Amino acid sequence: MALLGYVAASLTTASFFPQAIKTVRSGDTRGISLGMYALFTLGISCWGVYGLLTRDGPLIVANAITLVPAGLILERKLRAVLAGRERRS
Amino acid sequence: MALLGYVAASLTTASFFPQAIKTVRSGDTRGISLGMYALFTLGISCWGVYGLLTRDGPLIVANAITLVPAGLILERKLRAVLAGRERRS
Repeated sequence: MALLGYVAASLTTASFFPQAIKTVRSGDTRGISLGMYALFTLGISCWGVYGLLTRDGPLIVANAITLVPAGLILERKLRAVLAGRERRS
Repeated sequence: MALLGYVAASLTTASFFPQAIKTVRSGDTRGISLGMYALFTLGISCWGVYGLLTRDGPLIVANAITLVPAGLILERKLRAVLAGRERRS
């Protein structure tokens, strides 16, 4: 049963890597929602702090890993919006 | 401290809604990674089953809610790929 939890955590954490690779390679952030990555990056940062406060190792590790691709996608989208290449949405 | 956990869970769950709304409205799935949404949707389904098996209410609720926007985005992307409008990536 714990195995299923680890499988679930690995899948949701790993899922952001193909998106980050695609976004960084193509530079196409038009279909990416700024709102999603702003809320999501803030959310996993909160999860990480919560993990630190509750001394929950897996929670810290999973969220620290997910922060890398999610932060990259947010940075690319923000850069496009700030450069005026895209509307905010 | 538990409050921070609820804030974190609400942010990460809510984050997929602006992306789903944007994707459904614009129909633009070119920048969306099929790999991400395939892995992510499978991952939150595993989280939901894990929640059912461990009788964890918040885990079941959070993942059932997230499944709606994530499934919608996956369905739109899959439809575009299967229609030959986009390459798989």
